[in-house]
Amino acid sequence: MKLGKHLSFSILLLLSATWSANGGNILVWYTEGSHWINMKPVLETLIDRGHQVTVLVPSTSMFMNISEPSGFSYEPFNVSVSVEQMERLMEDLFQFSIYEADKMSYLQIYNRFMELIDVNMEYTLKFLDGLLKSETTMTKLKDGKYDLLFSDPIFPGSDLLADVLGVPLVLSLRLSMANNWERQCGQLPAPPSFVPGGMSKLTDKMNFLERVQNFLFYQFQDIMLANCIWTKVDKYYSEYRGTPTSACELLGKADIWLMRTYWDFDFPHPLLPNFKYVGGIHCRPAKPLPEDMEEFVQSSGDAGVVVFSLGSMVKNMTREKGNMIASGLAQIPQKVLWRYSGEKPDTLGANTRIYNWIPQNDLLGHPKTQAFITHGGTNGIYEAIYHGVPLVGIPLFGDQPDNLVHMKAKGAAVNLEINFMKSEDLTDAVHTVINDNSYKENAMRLSSIHHDRPMSPRDEAHLRVQAHELTWYQYHSLDVLAFFLTIDLFLIFIFIKTCSFCFCRCCGRKSTTKRKTE
Amino acid sequence: MKLGKHLSFSILLLLSATWSANGGNILVWYTEGSHWINMKPVLETLIDRGHQVTVLVPSTSMFMNISEPSGFSYEPFNVSVSVEQMERLMEDLFQFSIYEADKMSYLQIYNRFMELIDVNMEYTLKFLDGLLKSETTMTKLKDGKYDLLFSDPIFPGSDLLADVLGVPLVLSLRLSMANNWERQCGQLPAPPSFVPGGMSKLTDKMNFLERVQNFLFYQFQDIMLANCIWTKVDKYYSEYRGTPTSACELLGKADIWLMRTYWDFDFPHPLLPNFKYVGGIHCRPAKPLPEDMEEFVQSSGDAGVVVFSLGSMVKNMTREKGNMIASGLAQIPQKVLWRYSGEKPDTLGANTRIYNWIPQNDLLGHPKTQAFITHGGTNGIYEAIYHGVPLVGIPLFGDQPDNLVHMKAKGAAVNLEINFMKSEDLTDAVHTVINDNSYKENAMRLSSIHHDRPMSPRDEAHLRVQAHELTWYQYHSLDVLAFFLTIDLFLIFIFIKTCSFCFCRCCGRKSTTKRKTE
Repeated sequence: MKLGKHLSFSILLLLSATWSANGGNILVWYTEGSHWINMKPVLETLIDRGHQVTVLVPSTSMFMNISEPSGFSYEPFNVSVSVEQMERLMEDLFQFSIYEADKMSYLQIYNRFMELIDVNMEYTLKFLDGLLKSETTMTKLKDGKYDLLFSDPIFPGSDLLADVLGVPLVLSLRLSMANNWERQCGQLPAPPSFVPGGMSKLTDKMNFLERVQNFLFYQFQDIMLANCIWTKVDKYYSEYRGTPTSACELLGKADIWLMRTYWDFDFPHPLLPNFKYVGGIHCRPAKPLPEDMEEFVQSSGDAGVVVFSLGSMVKNMTREKGNMIASGLAQIPQKVLWRYSGEKPDTLGANTRIYNWIPQNDLLGHPKTQAFITHGGTNGIYEAIYHGVPLVGIPLFGDQPDNLVHMKAKGAAVNLEINFMKSEDLTDAVHTVINDNSYKENAMRLSSIHHDRPMSPRDEAHLRVQAHELTWYQYHSLDVLAFFLTIDLFLIFIFIKTCSFCFCRCCGRKSTTKRKTE
Repeated sequence: MKLGKHLSFSILLLLSATWSANGGNILVWYTEGSHWINMKPVLETLIDRGHQVTVLVPSTSMFMNISEPSGFSYEPFNVSVSVEQMERLMEDLFQFSIYEADKMSYLQIYNRFMELIDVNMEYTLKFLDGLLKSETTMTKLKDGKYDLLFSDPIFPGSDLLADVLGVPLVLSLRLSMANNWERQCGQLPAPPSFVPGGMSKLTDKMNFLERVQNFLFYQFQDIMLANCIWTKVDKYYSEYRGTPTSACELLGKADIWLMRTYWDFDFPHPLLPNFKYVGGIHCRPAKPLPEDMEEFVQSSGDAGVVVFSLGSMVKNMTREKGNMIASGLAQIPQKVLWRYSGEKPDTLGANTRIYNWIPQNDLLGHPKTQAFITHGGTNGIYEAIYHGVPLVGIPLFGDQPDNLVHMKAKGAAVNLEINFMKSEDLTDAVHTVINDNSYKENAMRLSSIHHDRPMSPRDEAHLRVQAHELTWYQYHSLDVLAFFLTIDLFLIFIFIKTCSFCFCRCCGRKSTTKRKTE
């Protein structure tokens, strides 16, 4: 939605009256991976508009490249975590999320997850130490006279720095687990009856059992996050400030939340005036392809091409999986452009070319492109929405499964599971999204919403919340609560019966014994 | 906020794919009084953009003038209510709201209010009869091939017509009593802990007792509206459609709710994707004044002028009130332009001129204008916000007291009560808003928000909901509920004690009697 985006930019721009003449002085919190890739185009736009942008960069950043030419200034700081440790953690997280978890019991998953979370928290706090406890850096930041701090809160601490520097905080995020930050810190209302928890893999149309599941998901995640994240961050903040401090409360002081989603991708839900929806802010019209790539694309004839990428984080996969995917792709009539840095699979078809890097947005905007096989990162999904391309989803980790559930619910994706799919499944899925017209139509409809283009009146439903379809007791989850109450009462009944049974037997035996001895 | 408004217009414009070439074909639901004045500029904008606009007009309309030259087409229909009856009802409502209610007991107020509501409902249904049961009109409407129905839902029935014609419904409203329509029909979340009920005269900063009051206000209004409005409209709708129909459910099917408010005027509260905030959509830059008026304004010198209007609905007032106001105005150093059609007060000062009509927006945008004395209609308040003029409020009825409470809370108004004010109060109030700089500063701040102009970072607070200042139990009104529970328990305790006391006395007496007779 063009205007929505401009609006958000205008809010960014107007945050300081002092900007009018010279542009503002913006400090940017460090981030990593796809979060950094996502933030860069926003920062570039700010620079284009005459603002100064200074980015905080830890010495062991994997994705933020200080030497890369750009319009940003960098403010590096030293941290006591090595690049190897960071890469190891990243690799462990991938391996666990993508491959290991599917073979583990629930208890094993929980233990391993907690282990990884703990290591992550340890590093996070070391990063904070490197920044907040470095007198040199903090003096520089205080002298920098910044007008605002811009932050993706995936790495905690920006709220504390904003508070210390006394500058407004503008957040930019896709979503948090079970919308915890938005709900508990940002005060965003999210009734579990029609707002599926972030990463719950549920949609806004939930049957009774799904609503029970969503309700529990909120509760469990709130408890988990309180124990694993908030208490530790609170402790750190409180020690640093010398006064009891709630990190969630500090985060809630953010002036603007720029959410990287919109009603083309998200389900309608309640919002607040300081929540702005800017999904796909990085999308641009397609530029021409490199000559040899254009030639390959044109050679596909009427069949067209399929673009395939599992994102920037996955460099390679097992030989077995590579072969399974390659042989699936070999069966389709389209030509395939596959972004992949691993070993060339043995089963690679003549129709498939492997690339170390592809101009993804330009390819998705190419008229020959019929479908996009994706891991479901927000960036890629938004580029597909922008250009109206149907998806085959192979989600790997993080918000990807949830993202692809959204696209499936909106009728623009067929999803597969990396650990359970066969090569025929991939062939079938690509065939379906290309030959069943509804997928292309739905993708084009999402594109219309995204571009705020005229559409038929009945398509306006994307703005109405699912709450309209609920009864009052469903809206307030009273049926869900009644369900739990029934279970509770049943358990209490069983407990009492069991106790009284045991008690009777004991007493009975005793009294029998007593009587016998009498 | 410019962009917000354009966005809403764009939504209006994109509601039909068929509009791209020839413009859309828009049917407009009838309305009355200030609601019609408010709707006209929106319709004019639609016409400017190449749409066809057809307005439904009942034969006894007081404010919709078919013969007035305009770009609209009119679709008149006959109703079995006379203009005299309508004018009588209007006059009765004014007299009751402005003067009589202040002298009545609560029971008298309730009874008189119910009487007026019943007459209003009777006329409303007769209007509906005139439209929906006229075969000629309905055939014309069905043949009209309208793309959407645009409606201020103050007169019920547009949702039913939209349903019958099978066209999308776009609503335009300021607010409903206790936000009943928005909450119950539109599914807008409105926790009573920080969202003051529409027309409750409360702000978003409420102490415990005010939160109790707000909670009760919601409950009482919901019950009142269910009994006085919804059941009767439901009955009518059900009979008309021949199937059980909920009017609230039909209203909830509206695609877009255009709310005539914005964060310059309203308190931040949760919203939904299909609620668009377009307050002040009718405001325009000031045009030059008529020559003699400009001369009078210029003659004020450095002191400047005060603009005074109690709106289009109030033509005159008692001689006593007129004199009280005129002598108050005579005491101020500014020149006064007073829109008033009543008898010339005896005490009229040399500094005050009475006009039958004033170009209010042009006057408020005039650099000599220091303050605006207003009844607090939304139109006038928005013109004052647009031009950054501080207010003296003399609210009369409807949403006016609530509107002025908002402006007072935002520090841009001093409010008076028409039935209790003295002439000195008016002199003092005008003096205060002109000479205490904070009023002008706050008015200018609201104007900045309205125009989305750069402002200092700390002013962004207008977007953060008051929920941030509440504890979790306050947010969910648990303290309010605990308060009621305590009262309930106390009453139950008193009841039981009383019963047992009576019972004992009775039994005691009986048994004494019994014993005596034995």
